[in-house]
Amino acid sequence: NSCSKTSIPAKSVTSIIDGLKKLYIEKLKPLEIAYRFNDFVSPLLTASDFDAKPQVMLLGQYSTGKTTFIKHLLQASYPGAHIGPEPTTDRFVVVMGGTDERSVPGNTIAVQADMPFSGLSKFGTAFLSKFECSLMPHPLLEHITFVDTPGVLSGEKQRTQRSYDFTGVTSWFAAKCDLILLLFDPHKLDISDEFKRVITSLRGHDDKIRVVLNKADQVDTQQLMRVYGALMWSLGKVINTPEVMRVYIGSFNDKPINEQKIGPMGRELFEREQNDLLADLKDIPRKSCDRRINEFVKRARQAKIHAYIIGHLKKEMPTMMGKQKAQQRLIDNLEDEFAKVQREYHLPPGDFPSLEHYRETLAGYNIDKFEKPKPKMVQAVDDMLGYDIPELLKRFRNPYD
Amino acid sequence: NSCSKTSIPAKSVTSIIDGLKKLYIEKLKPLEIAYRFNDFVSPLLTASDFDAKPQVMLLGQYSTGKTTFIKHLLQASYPGAHIGPEPTTDRFVVVMGGTDERSVPGNTIAVQADMPFSGLSKFGTAFLSKFECSLMPHPLLEHITFVDTPGVLSGEKQRTQRSYDFTGVTSWFAAKCDLILLLFDPHKLDISDEFKRVITSLRGHDDKIRVVLNKADQVDTQQLMRVYGALMWSLGKVINTPEVMRVYIGSFNDKPINEQKIGPMGRELFEREQNDLLADLKDIPRKSCDRRINEFVKRARQAKIHAYIIGHLKKEMPTMMGKQKAQQRLIDNLEDEFAKVQREYHLPPGDFPSLEHYRETLAGYNIDKFEKPKPKMVQAVDDMLGYDIPELLKRFRNPYD
Ligand SMILES: Nc1ncnc2c1ncn2[C@@H]1O[C@H](COP(=O)(O)OP(=O)(O)OP(=O)(O)O)[C@@H](O)[C@H]1O
Ligand SMILES: Nc1ncnc2c1ncn2[C@@H]1O[C@H](COP(=O)(O)OP(=O)(O)OP(=O)(O)O)[C@@H](O)[C@H]1O
Ligand SMILES: [Mg+2]
Ligand SMILES: [Mg+2]
Repeated sequence: NSCSKTSIPAKSVTSIIDGLKKLYIEKLKPLEIAYRFNDFVSPLLTASDFDAKPQVMLLGQYSTGKTTFIKHLLQASYPGAHIGPEPTTDRFVVVMGGTDERSVPGNTIAVQADMPFSGLSKFGTAFLSKFECSLMPHPLLEHITFVDTPGVLSGEKQRTQRSYDFTGVTSWFAAKCDLILLLFDPHKLDISDEFKRVITSLRGHDDKIRVVLNKADQVDTQQLMRVYGALMWSLGKVINTPEVMRVYIGSFNDKPINEQKIGPMGRELFEREQNDLLADLKDIPRKSCDRRINEFVKRARQAKIHAYIIGHLKKEMPTMMGKQKAQQRLIDNLEDEFAKVQREYHLPPGDFPSLEHYRETLAGYNIDKFEKPKPKMVQAVDDMLGYDIPELLKRFRNPYD
Repeated sequence: NSCSKTSIPAKSVTSIIDGLKKLYIEKLKPLEIAYRFNDFVSPLLTASDFDAKPQVMLLGQYSTGKTTFIKHLLQASYPGAHIGPEPTTDRFVVVMGGTDERSVPGNTIAVQADMPFSGLSKFGTAFLSKFECSLMPHPLLEHITFVDTPGVLSGEKQRTQRSYDFTGVTSWFAAKCDLILLLFDPHKLDISDEFKRVITSLRGHDDKIRVVLNKADQVDTQQLMRVYGALMWSLGKVINTPEVMRVYIGSFNDKPINEQKIGPMGRELFEREQNDLLADLKDIPRKSCDRRINEFVKRARQAKIHAYIIGHLKKEMPTMMGKQKAQQRLIDNLEDEFAKVQREYHLPPGDFPSLEHYRETLAGYNIDKFEKPKPKMVQAVDDMLGYDIPELLKRFRNPYD
C-alpha cells in the first residue's frame, strides 16, 4: 500500500531528532489521539520533549557534594546554588542553558508548554514550590542539562516526612534522564531507607546509573579501600543486577587533592577517574540521540498494541443491548482479552501495558464510543517503522558521532 | 543437691582446655552415652578434639596462591607441597606440627584415634585417597594447623565431577576451623557454581571467613579498584550478611612487591594489609580458646535437651500393649512433642535439634528400650555449667590473653 508512504520533504528536516518530531506529528500522534494512548499508557509528546537537552541527575545523601560537583564542572555557580556542610539544597533544581542568568519558580515552569516539565504538575503544588529552574549562558549547558536534588535523608531526619512524593519525582526524572549519578562520601556510606526507596525508584534505568565516591582524599588509602569495599558490598545487595556498577573514585571540587592523605599514587588514580567520568559525560549527547530513537520506536510499537487492544475490545461489544454488562465482563477478563490480541497479532507479551492501570482507565470510558479500527492509521505507523525511520537514519548521522 | 558436685582435683588440671576435657569425660559424656547423643546430634568428642590446634582453612580457585600463601607464612614448603600455574594441589592437605617431616595418607589418618579426623571417614575412600596429612617441625605449627585444599573449579572444568562430596568436606572442615581464608586473584574473580556451593557450605561460620585479594600487584591501581569493587559487589550477593567481609589486599608470596605496577603507595598499603592479616592469624589461638569454651557450653545444653526429649518420649509410651503404634504416632507428631518439652522446661526453640534428622534416627530405635530419665546425670551437667566451668575460668586464664 504505497500511497500512505507520504514521506516528509527532505529539505525541511534538519536532524534525526527533528525528523522524529515531524514523524511523530504526522504519523504517530494521530493514532495516539484516536485511541487515547495518553490516558492509557503515556502522555502525548510535545515539541519540548524532542528539543530538550540530555539530562544528568545527581542523587545522594546531603553534603556529599552534589551542588559542588555541578559548580566544579561549570566552573561557576548556577543562580540560586547553595553549598554548605548542613543540608542546603532544599529543592529540585534543573540547571539549563539560557540567554541570561535567572531562576524560574516551579509553578511557572510547569505551565510552560515549551519546557519539558509539565508532567511534574501531577506531584502537586507542595512539590512545585520545591522545584526551580536555573538558567545561565554556558557552553556545557548547550549540550547537557543538570538536575540538582535535595539530599536524601538518613535515620533520624528521615522521620520528618517530605510534603511530596520524593521517590515519585526521582522516578519521573530517572525516566527522562540520560545519566544518574549517585554520590557518596567516605563518611556518608550508609544507604538509608529513603535512599533504598530512591534507588528502587530508578529500576528499569540501571544502565543510566553511575556511582561517585566523592571526597575520597579525606581518608588514607587503607581506609579508602575499606570504605569503597563496604560501598560495593551494600550497593550490590540493593541494586539487583549482576553487572557491577561503575564507580568513579575522586574528589570533584575545585580544591587541589589532599596528597598528604592519599599520596601521589592517589592523585594519579583520581585524575584518571576524573578523566573517565568527564569522558562519560561528554559521551551523553551522542548516546542520548541513540536512546531517543530507541524509545521512539518502542513508543510506536506500544501505540500500535494499544490500538489493537481497543479495536479488539470494541469488536467484542454487542451491537444493540447489554452494552454495560459486556463492558464490565471485558474489563474483568482483561487478561484473557490481552492474550487474545497477543495471539491474533503475534505480539511479544512483554510489550503489553500494565494490566492494573489499563483496567482502571478503561472503567472511565465507554468502549463502545471508541472510533472504529482505522487500518490506515496503523499502516502509517508501520510505514514509519519500516521505511521512514530507516531512511532518516540513512540521511542523517548522529551529530555527535 | 551438693553431693553431685564432685569437682575435679585442681592439681591434675593444667589449662582451660585440659579442664574441659576432664569435665567432658566425667560429667557430660555419661549423659551423651546414656541417650545416644552421638547418633542423634553430634559424634562423641575424643581427646584429640580437645588437643587439636586451631585450624586455618584456605579456599579459592586454582592458582590463586593458596599453597604459596602457606609456604610464605612458614618460609618453607610443607612435605608434598606443589606450586604451579595449572591446578596443582589435588587433595586436602592438613599441615601440622610434628617431630620430623613426613606425609601420612588419608586412609591412615582416618583410623588414628589421636587425630581429630576420624569423622572424615564418612566421605568414603574416594575422599580419603584425596586426603593427606603433612607433618613438619615448625614453631608456627605448634599453635596453628593449616588446611590446604584443591582449587575450586570454574566453568568447563567443573563439569568433570569430583568423585566425592567436595562441599560436604569443606563444610566439615569449616565447623572445625577457626579461620577460613577465601583467596582470589585479579584474574580469577568469577564465583563459579562450585565456588557458590562451597561458600554456601560455610553458612553458620560467616564470622570465620576472611577474604584475600592476592597477587594484587599484577594490575595497576585503577584496575585494582575495579577488580576489588567487582569482588565486593558479587561477594555481597553470595554472602548474605549485612556486615562487610574483611578483605586483605596484597601479594602473599616471598617475592618483592611489583612497585612498577602498584607504585610506592601500593607497597605501603599492601604492607599494612599484610600486617593486619598476620595480626589476625596470631590472634587465632586466643580466640580459639574462647570459641571452644562457647561450643562446649552449647553442646552441654544440647545434650540436656536431647535427654529431656528422649525422657519425654519414653514417658509417653504405653506400659503394656500397642508400643509400635505409639512409637509411630510419637514420631509422626514429633514437632508437637518437641513443643511440649520446650514448654515444660522453658527451653529456647532455637536450641532444639533438626526435626528431620531426629525423626530418621528415632525410627531406628525402640523408644521403649531407652534408659529411664536419670535426674542425677542431668544434675551433673547443670552443676558443670553452673559451677565447674565458671570455677575453671576463674582458675585459669586464656593462655594467649
Ligand atoms: N570533593 C570535595 N572535597 C571536600 N569537600 C567537599 C567536596 N565537595 C563538597 N565538599 C564540601 O561538602 C559540603 C557539602 O557540599 P554541597 O553543598 O555541594 O553538598 P550537597 O550534596 O549539594 O548537599 P545538599 O544535599 O545538602 O544540597 C560543603 O561544605 C562543600 O564545601
Ligand atoms: N602473590 C603472588 N604473586 C604472584 N604470583 C603468585 C603469587 N602467589 C602464587 N603465585 C603463583 O601462582 C601460581 C599458583 O600458585 P599456587 O600453586 O600456590 O596456587 P594454589 O591456589 O595452591 O593452586 P591450586 O589450587 O592449583 O593448588 C604459581 O605459579 C605461583 O608461583
Ligand atoms: Mg546541594
Ligand atoms: Mg595449591
